[in-house]
Amino acid sequence: MNLILLYTSDFIGPHRVRLDGRRLRHLQEVHRGQVGEHFRVGVLNGLIGQGTLIHLDQHSAELEVRLNQAPPPVLPLRLVMALPRPKMLKRCIETIATLGVKELWLINSYRVDKSYWSTPLLHPERLHEHLLLGLEQSGDTRLPRVEVRKRFKPFVEDELPTLAHNTRALVAHPYNAAPCPAPMDTPTTLAIGPEGGFIAYEVEKLEQAGLQAIHLGPRILRVETAVPVLLSRLFPLPV
Amino acid sequence: MNLILLYTSDFIGPHRVRLDGRRLRHLQEVHRGQVGEHFRVGVLNGLIGQGTLIHLDQHSAELEVRLNQAPPPVLPLRLVMALPRPKMLKRCIETIATLGVKELWLINSYRVDKSYWSTPLLHPERLHEHLLLGLEQSGDTRLPRVEVRKRFKPFVEDELPTLAHNTRALVAHPYNAAPCPAPMDTPTTLAIGPEGGFIAYEVEKLEQAGLQAIHLGPRILRVETAVPVLLSRLFPLPV
Repeated sequence: MNLILLYTSDFIGPHRVRLDGRRLRHLQEVHRGQVGEHFRVGVLNGLIGQGTLIHLDQHSAELEVRLNQAPPPVLPLRLVMALPRPKMLKRCIETIATLGVKELWLINSYRVDKSYWSTPLLHPERLHEHLLLGLEQSGDTRLPRVEVRKRFKPFVEDELPTLAHNTRALVAHPYNAAPCPAPMDTPTTLAIGPEGGFIAYEVEKLEQAGLQAIHLGPRILRVETAVPVLLSRLFPLPV
Repeated sequence: MNLILLYTSDFIGPHRVRLDGRRLRHLQEVHRGQVGEHFRVGVLNGLIGQGTLIHLDQHSAELEVRLNQAPPPVLPLRLVMALPRPKMLKRCIETIATLGVKELWLINSYRVDKSYWSTPLLHPERLHEHLLLGLEQSGDTRLPRVEVRKRFKPFVEDELPTLAHNTRALVAHPYNAAPCPAPMDTPTTLAIGPEGGFIAYEVEKLEQAGLQAIHLGPRILRVETAVPVLLSRLFPLPV
């Protein structure tokens, strides 16, 4: 937790918050917080700044907060991802939030095992929890939006063309593809397939929706490795 | 397993191998291999090519192999990494092998918990096992070399200056650092700290050894995310 996320309900005064539960335990056990110490804090979907620990006991912690900085810049990216298996989904959601993605579409694909759709990780409150962990890791406050589409064809035919319109629209695919383009700070739509990749029919449908197939070289990467690699190759380093 | 790794001991003829154990189970359970089917194969530290399944029963699989291609290009990188916690170490080792790193130095640092050094993952046969999984994922055959140094100071003072000499020598560090340089296909030495980063004294010692501090922007990344991000930013896409 490189930033303590605050909610409006934490405020007990204009510049004062009271924390309990997970954030209290983290302050005690990981930071071994002492009264007077400073911590990086940020309000969910709001500003970041500094919090000073002014009271700590086993039930709650109180901080005086000064919020005066914008959160880090976001990636201008709409990420469309075939639902990964649950263990990988959890890590992907955190990584995606950490890297500054603000829009994630989880979709079906032929190689997505049907059982993956019943994971409790897809419940909004569980998604929310892992998105927050990703934000806290990176020092961000802006919550990504997650959309779930359990049917490939209607999504790709009816929604994706509009989403991809006027963006740099790409699908990561190791075969018959162009090399990944150079970093550019431009609105981008990127689709990433499941382990084993999209099938030929799906790539064709994605191309009909306006996406261009790109590859990352001869090595085949796991989805959770491909995500940071693609984002690093497609966007310049933020300032 | 995007490539079945073969060992010289698998060969029962000049172009014929017999597999059992993990690789047999993978062929049966994941690939649901059928006689006549083709698979990507490669000899450890040797060529890659195609294997045709010619016999399969519950005890073994036999393939006719044709090995005629070089494995994918490697990264000209010496990666020096503070030992991560065991769960992350396992994933990092696989990712590093997948991404084409051929030399990994695992070192101590102030923020490396002492208990991490007793993980069985550091036993050579366990390291080997996870390196192989990474190679099989990416389609590579060249086994990375892993060196372990449990004392920071002697490593950084006595070994690192020679290792870093005449290379692009960098340490990833979020504070008082230059932005990550542009991709370049040049011999590189890169040090990555533990969760929480190297302490100031360590950064100073690394700089004295010839390393320049670089950062990846305002977001703080977990080590397992920082590795693919750094490698993607530092090296061009392989052809």
